[in-house]
Amino acid sequence: MSRAVEFWFEFSSPYGYLASHRIDAIATRHGREVRWRPYLLGVAFRKSGRGPQVDYPLLREYSLHDMQRCARLHGIAFHMPERFPVSAMAATRAFYSLVDSDATVARDLARRVYAAYFRHGRDISDPETVIDEAVAVGIDGDRLRADLQDEAVKRRAKEETEKAIERGVFGSPFVLVDGEPFWGNDRLEQVDHWLATGGW
Amino acid sequence: MSRAVEFWFEFSSPYGYLASHRIDAIATRHGREVRWRPYLLGVAFRKSGRGPQVDYPLLREYSLHDMQRCARLHGIAFHMPERFPVSAMAATRAFYSLVDSDATVARDLARRVYAAYFRHGRDISDPETVIDEAVAVGIDGDRLRADLQDEAVKRRAKEETEKAIERGVFGSPFVLVDGEPFWGNDRLEQVDHWLATGGW
Repeated sequence: MSRAVEFWFEFSSPYGYLASHRIDAIATRHGREVRWRPYLLGVAFRKSGRGPQVDYPLLREYSLHDMQRCARLHGIAFHMPERFPVSAMAATRAFYSLVDSDATVARDLARRVYAAYFRHGRDISDPETVIDEAVAVGIDGDRLRADLQDEAVKRRAKEETEKAIERGVFGSPFVLVDGEPFWGNDRLEQVDHWLATGGW
Repeated sequence: MSRAVEFWFEFSSPYGYLASHRIDAIATRHGREVRWRPYLLGVAFRKSGRGPQVDYPLLREYSLHDMQRCARLHGIAFHMPERFPVSAMAATRAFYSLVDSDATVARDLARRVYAAYFRHGRDISDPETVIDEAVAVGIDGDRLRADLQDEAVKRRAKEETEKAIERGVFGSPFVLVDGEPFWGNDRLEQVDHWLATGGW
């Protein structure tokens, strides 16, 4: 069995959202699966000492422009949410409460959460928004509501974020191909080329 | 006459160096000229509050890896200099002392200075290094040595940097295509596509 491509992302990351529309097709083209791994980017930002581009004067306007231009280029619906960034805690916990029993359902939920935030402007920091989206993909809402308070689930989300930092993952999206790190939606062409060639 | 594509860069920028090997071919393919415009990125960094990637923990190792991987992908010789970054003041002044009378010679010098720093590890913050490289492309060394002390030349380099900030240029490389801004060596594919299509 081929090793999965690791797709690390954070739920309030615009470029992570864009990459989430592209990574599966790229990997599939080369016979590879993708392991989706959401984490909490704020922890990495605190470690690196550098925050999101939109926090910096001069960079903010350009970044918003670039996100929309990249979205149009790839034909992805995108609207920058008014509240940004928001906590991805509930969404991240929801994902990890599901992934071990059904990775496909967890991924479906991830896609719904991303669309809720970056297409429909819903507040995904509210656990009830995440639960709504989960119900829409067939998940038991009451069960998920309880799981979001479960200590093991909370610990799992925390541990995944720690694993990200340990592995040198510090941005979103961040793709690992057999250990080779690629940071940014704008490195997916290189991910594609790396998978095709085995590296250069 | 078609409007020139503006190629803003700083002489101690690794990604600027990489882009300097690519921008002319991209523009030429679409019948456009390139106006090379070096400036002092440190001023923009101070304005934006955010420094070069290699200054940040976590990002440093990845950035060095990414620069070399991008260089290999494009077949560009690249060695990260031990002293980095260094002042681009002398090189920038030298460029602007030449550009009005002969833009081709100024560009030749820019290429030499970039190669001196990112291929041969020479200290381009030393005016004598810049003068050496200038002599190698047929420029009068003594004349340039005097020009580097000329108040009008100093002022011109300062003004170009101020123009960069005014126009929203804050990184290196930074390309303007008919006013449309593209930041980064990793946006040159979009520059190519923009020139081909007129935008999207």
